Amino acid sequence: MSVLKPEDTRIKNATTLLHLLLKQDSISRVELSRITGLTKTTVSSIINEFIALGIVEESSTISTGNVGKSPIPLHIRTDAVYTIGVHLGRQEVKTVLMDARMNILSRKKGLSYERLGPKGILESLFLSIDDSMKGAEKNKFKIGVIGIGVPGPLNAETGIVSHPPKFKGWKDVPLGKIIHERYKLPVWIENDANVGVLAEKWHGGGKDLKNFVYVLANEGIGAGIVIDDELYQGAYDYVGEIGHTLFYDHGKFRYLEDISGVDILIKKARSRGLNIENIKEIPNLLQKNDKVTKSIVKQLATWIGATVINVIHIIGPEAVFIGGKMAVLGDALVQPIKEIVSQYLFGDQAVDVRLSEISEDAVAIGAAIYATTKWLEKKSTERAHY
Amino acid sequence: MSVLKPEDTRIKNATTLLHLLLKQDSISRVELSRITGLTKTTVSSIINEFIALGIVEESSTISTGNVGKSPIPLHIRTDAVYTIGVHLGRQEVKTVLMDARMNILSRKKGLSYERLGPKGILESLFLSIDDSMKGAEKNKFKIGVIGIGVPGPLNAETGIVSHPPKFKGWKDVPLGKIIHERYKLPVWIENDANVGVLAEKWHGGGKDLKNFVYVLANEGIGAGIVIDDELYQGAYDYVGEIGHTLFYDHGKFRYLEDISGVDILIKKARSRGLNIENIKEIPNLLQKNDKVTKSIVKQLATWIGATVINVIHIIGPEAVFIGGKMAVLGDALVQPIKEIVSQYLFGDQAVDVRLSEISEDAVAIGAAIYATTKWLEKKSTERAHY
Repeated sequence: MSVLKPEDTRIKNATTLLHLLLKQDSISRVELSRITGLTKTTVSSIINEFIALGIVEESSTISTGNVGKSPIPLHIRTDAVYTIGVHLGRQEVKTVLMDARMNILSRKKGLSYERLGPKGILESLFLSIDDSMKGAEKNKFKIGVIGIGVPGPLNAETGIVSHPPKFKGWKDVPLGKIIHERYKLPVWIENDANVGVLAEKWHGGGKDLKNFVYVLANEGIGAGIVIDDELYQGAYDYVGEIGHTLFYDHGKFRYLEDISGVDILIKKARSRGLNIENIKEIPNLLQKNDKVTKSIVKQLATWIGATVINVIHIIGPEAVFIGGKMAVLGDALVQPIKEIVSQYLFGDQAVDVRLSEISEDAVAIGAAIYATTKWLEKKSTERAHY
Repeated sequence: MSVLKPEDTRIKNATTLLHLLLKQDSISRVELSRITGLTKTTVSSIINEFIALGIVEESSTISTGNVGKSPIPLHIRTDAVYTIGVHLGRQEVKTVLMDARMNILSRKKGLSYERLGPKGILESLFLSIDDSMKGAEKNKFKIGVIGIGVPGPLNAETGIVSHPPKFKGWKDVPLGKIIHERYKLPVWIENDANVGVLAEKWHGGGKDLKNFVYVLANEGIGAGIVIDDELYQGAYDYVGEIGHTLFYDHGKFRYLEDISGVDILIKKARSRGLNIENIKEIPNLLQKNDKVTKSIVKQLATWIGATVINVIHIIGPEAVFIGGKMAVLGDALVQPIKEIVSQYLFGDQAVDVRLSEISEDAVAIGAAIYATTKWLEKKSTERAHY
């Protein structure tokens, strides 16, 4: 039931102040009061608790020479929590180490899986996290939380990964529980595109946007959606599953994922005589103006473009970012998408379609951001005992 | 900025109590307190203002024979406000008269437009509203607000209808202003599918659902979306525009609205030798097992089904209701949609697809509900002076 009691008000205000602090390098109590309209007393009371909880600290100030007290700048303590963000992908594990101000301290790329199937992949996952843990310990960073981005569908509440397409043998794997039991740390799990959109929001082109979509185009294709500045997670676990958009092609309906994506691109290229192993070889061929490559990329981009149009017409975002491994194709991918979007939008509707500003580590970074934010939100609503 | 000050808390709580009162035939202060967790003092203070504002009254009670005070049941006053809800459609105007408890007091169907284009249609609109006004006055119902559902896209804030497809000559018509100036009443405007979903929520199959989609299948095809018990209105005016879903058909992309919808159905039927003027003649042909009719309906339903699948994969609703003029086709329409949905959903995903439970007046009813709710929400946050 949507009502507010005094403690809810405090929680909501604490969360709002926390998010403002996360977004700014530094901000004073006075500014927080001015921006939020909360009284200085309310702001100070919450900030004092944040300080007692070890989330926030006062920045060292330089005297301005003015008489009287200058406002003291505040910031989130970098050491409030350290997070390991994991991208558990279809081919490999990647990790990042992040501090509470969302600085990326290190990135690590695991080897491609030697053994596929959940068991082999989990072994690689453990190795990667162990490795990340050791690196953190060496630098005296105490890891407080783990975030994992993984192909969906999955249940973010229970941490169970149900049955991602193109992810062989995965069915109802209780990933959250497995990781929690091994590392005795809080674990947050979300689907890869849903955390990817958070990377775009905090580290990429979505910083100043409140409503946008991030397309993660790998072997699978998914979308993360930010509505009103928040990750849209829907009523249950199936949201932004644009890889399952239906297209009528050669007399039957097919999923987008069956006619576009990294694996389809490579398969098509090989079937037309190109000796390709990895999508990273494609840009070179494009630069050489290889006609076969160009036509394949354009065709696959067109399907993604039509999907993007459908999402725009349903959700109404301000911008759409194209990310994932396919982003390595650059303009050859984005131009056909932009063309189809501008062709089929309503006349006076303007939606910005562009390449993601985040590297291919978007999912690991987003997973770390997701877990860091969740951890801080939880912590910030605790009452400090001081 | 998302923060809460004491007056915001009161507004939010007042709105919550208002919605509970709207949903229940009658409910006591004690029950409101129990359901919301608000203190009895807070509930009583807000309810007393509602009573002073003329929104709520105490029901007459029957003595239970118990010693002591029985809780007094409360309800929204039917005469808190009377609303005219209008469906400004592509072929005709319909109106309903509604009281503040969302009872429909009368329904009126205007004649089909004699003159198309905004000017002729506005004349018909004025006639219909005038007529509705007179009917209300005769019964001493004082109209307090007008709600209009109209094909989008439009701007709900400014009341400007920009350029609905298949709505000849309409471009940037300031409908809200025109109606407000003529009737000197508050006017709320929303696109037809967006108010249709409210009719389903308050009077139809969506009563107990928090996340669902309503498909309005007329000449144009649109969707209204309820997320977390609220109408989803998006960042700007283009939301649920599923009529613009792209399908690849005969070598090019086409909009859903160009391959399905009432007008396409009639055109296809006529081109195959059926002497059809109105979609209402189709059920009869279906009952006679006319093969041509059956195959056309199935084809058009399949395109809608594929669109519904796309919406489900993006939004993740619990149910999808199929409404609008095409709903007259009944099972012949819904079965192919259900089939394609069950075929292409994720294995363990269950989404209920069914006919709308609202009559063809859904848009007029929804427009009245929209305006009534907006009016009551505004009123309920006023401070009474008593």
